[in-house]
Amino acid sequence: MSAAVSVARPGPAWLPEVAEAAGARLVPVGAETDALLWFGGDLGELRTALAAAPGTRWVQLPSAGVDSYADAGLLASPGITWTSAKGAFARPVAEHALALTLATLRRLPQRARARSWGSQAGTSLFGADVLVLGAGGIARTYLDLLVPFGTRNVVVRRRAEPVPRAERTVTADHLHAELARADVVVVAAALTTQTRALIGAAELAAMKPGAVLVNIARGGLVDTGALVAALASGRLSGAGLDVTDPEPLPDGHPLWDLPTALVTPHTADTQEMVEPLLRARVEENLRRFVAGDDLDGVVDPVAGY
Amino acid sequence: MSAAVSVARPGPAWLPEVAEAAGARLVPVGAETDALLWFGGDLGELRTALAAAPGTRWVQLPSAGVDSYADAGLLASPGITWTSAKGAFARPVAEHALALTLATLRRLPQRARARSWGSQAGTSLFGADVLVLGAGGIARTYLDLLVPFGTRNVVVRRRAEPVPRAERTVTADHLHAELARADVVVVAAALTTQTRALIGAAELAAMKPGAVLVNIARGGLVDTGALVAALASGRLSGAGLDVTDPEPLPDGHPLWDLPTALVTPHTADTQEMVEPLLRARVEENLRRFVAGDDLDGVVDPVAGY
Repeated sequence: MSAAVSVARPGPAWLPEVAEAAGARLVPVGAETDALLWFGGDLGELRTALAAAPGTRWVQLPSAGVDSYADAGLLASPGITWTSAKGAFARPVAEHALALTLATLRRLPQRARARSWGSQAGTSLFGADVLVLGAGGIARTYLDLLVPFGTRNVVVRRRAEPVPRAERTVTADHLHAELARADVVVVAAALTTQTRALIGAAELAAMKPGAVLVNIARGGLVDTGALVAALASGRLSGAGLDVTDPEPLPDGHPLWDLPTALVTPHTADTQEMVEPLLRARVEENLRRFVAGDDLDGVVDPVAGY
Repeated sequence: MSAAVSVARPGPAWLPEVAEAAGARLVPVGAETDALLWFGGDLGELRTALAAAPGTRWVQLPSAGVDSYADAGLLASPGITWTSAKGAFARPVAEHALALTLATLRRLPQRARARSWGSQAGTSLFGADVLVLGAGGIARTYLDLLVPFGTRNVVVRRRAEPVPRAERTVTADHLHAELARADVVVVAAALTTQTRALIGAAELAAMKPGAVLVNIARGGLVDTGALVAALASGRLSGAGLDVTDPEPLPDGHPLWDLPTALVTPHTADTQEMVEPLLRARVEENLRRFVAGDDLDGVVDPVAGY
C-alpha cells in the first residue's frame, strides 16, 4: 500500500500535486499516517498531531534551523526520522550574507542614514581574509559567492574536515587565533547548546580592529550586549545582522541607534524565495520516502541540527 | 637617451622608484619633457604644464573617466597620446556596483533607516535579468562577480560585438526593449555627448516595475529629476548611486529623503583602493613608453573615453 502522508493544518496549494507525483496518499492525521509534513505553526499542535499519529516514521520540518524543535524536546521522539530544510535555502541566505558583508565593508548603513555628501570611505572585499563559522549549505554557498573576489577563507566547524574553497578548516579551539586575522567574520553555524554565544565579549575583543561581523544564522550565536559594546567602542567597523537575540529586536534597543549596525528582520530567505525551494525539497523527500531511500536533510538529534 | 618624464606637481612617494625601475628619468616640466604624468588637480595647471613642455608625446591621467578633460578640449591636443586609468580600477568599482545591487534588491536603504523590526521583504539576485550599460573594464568585472548568481545578462554598448558572460550584446537603439525585461539595470558607461542623460524619463518609464537602478559611472548618464520622480512614484524598487548630477549632491536634494534611494559619495574606488592599482598602471605604461610599445588605456579623443 502506498505511503500515507498527513499535514497537521491545511498544506500549501501545490501539496496534492506533489504527493500524487511522488506516489504518496494524503490522509488526515491519524492511525494511518506514515509521515507528517509540518509547514510551521505552534509546536503544541505538532505534539498533538504526533500523539494522534503513533505510526509516524518521518517528520519533514519547514525551516533549516531546528533549534526550537530541539529545545522543545521533540527531536528525541523514538522511531521518528526528522528532516529539516537544511541546505535547501542556502542560496538566498548566502546571498543575503554577501549583501550584508558588502554593505558593512562599504559603510552603506552610515550612507543610507546620511543627508549630506561625505568623504570617501570603505574597504574592498577583494583579497580580504574571511572567516566563516559553520560548514553547512549556507556557509558553502557563501564561499562560492566569494570566488570572484579572491578572498582567503578559513572555516571553523565541529570537525576539522576540509571544506571546498577554504584554505584551512579548524575547530573552535582555534577560533580566537583566526578571529585576529579576519577582515570579515560570518556566522553561519547552527544554534546548539555548544554554539550559544559562540561570539561573546572575548571573541569580539579577539577580532581584528576594523573588521566586520555578519550573522545570518541565529541571533543566539552572538552575545548581543557584547556586540553593542564592541560597535559602540568603534573596534568593529560594522555588523550586519539578519537575526538578533532577542528576536524580533525590540523598539528602543541600542542596536537600532548604532550607526555601524545594520539589522534586517530575518529576511534572508523571504516566503517568496523559500516557497519553490521548500517545494523541491518536499517533492524530493516524498519520492525518497516512497522508494525507501535515505531522506535529504536528516536532523542529528544529538548534534541538534 | 632615456625617456624624460615630468609631473606638474609633486608626485606620489613611489614615483621615483617606479620611474627608475622602468628606465625613465624624472625631469622638471620643460623643454626636455617627453611624457607628463598627471596625478590630478586644476586643469589650468595641466594646460600650463603642457604649454611649458611642447615636446610632450604622452600624458597619463589618474582617473578612468576623462569627461572633464574632454569637456576642457584637452584631449584634442595634436601629437599627444592620452592614457587614462580605464580598466585599472575595475575591481573596486564593480564590487561597489554589486554592493549597491544587493543593497537595493534586499531593501537595505530602508532597513538601515528603520528603528523597528519589520516584515520580510527583498528580491533575490539568483537567476535575475541584469542589463549592463557599457562594456568596459568595470562592466566586464561586474559580470564576473555575477557568475555565481546565474543571472541572465544583456549588455548595451556602442557596437554590438559580443561581451563575455552576456547572453546578448545590443546597441542603444534596443535599449527600451531591454529595459522592459531587466530586474537590475547597471550604468557602467563612459559619459560622452552621446550618453548624457542616457537614462531619462522615457527610459525609466520603460523599466520593469519593481526593478532597481545602479549608477557607478557618472552622474550625468542619468536624468536626476526623472529618477527622483520614478522613485517617488514607487515604479522602481530602489536606486543605488555612487555618482550624482549635480555632484556632490547638495544638502536638501530630494534624493536624500527618498526611502528607496541610496547615495554614496563617489567612493566606489577610495584613494586607498586606487593607489596600488594606479601605481601598477603607471609602472606598466612607463615600461611600455620606454620600450616604444603601445600604451595601456589609450583614450580615443573622438569617442571621448
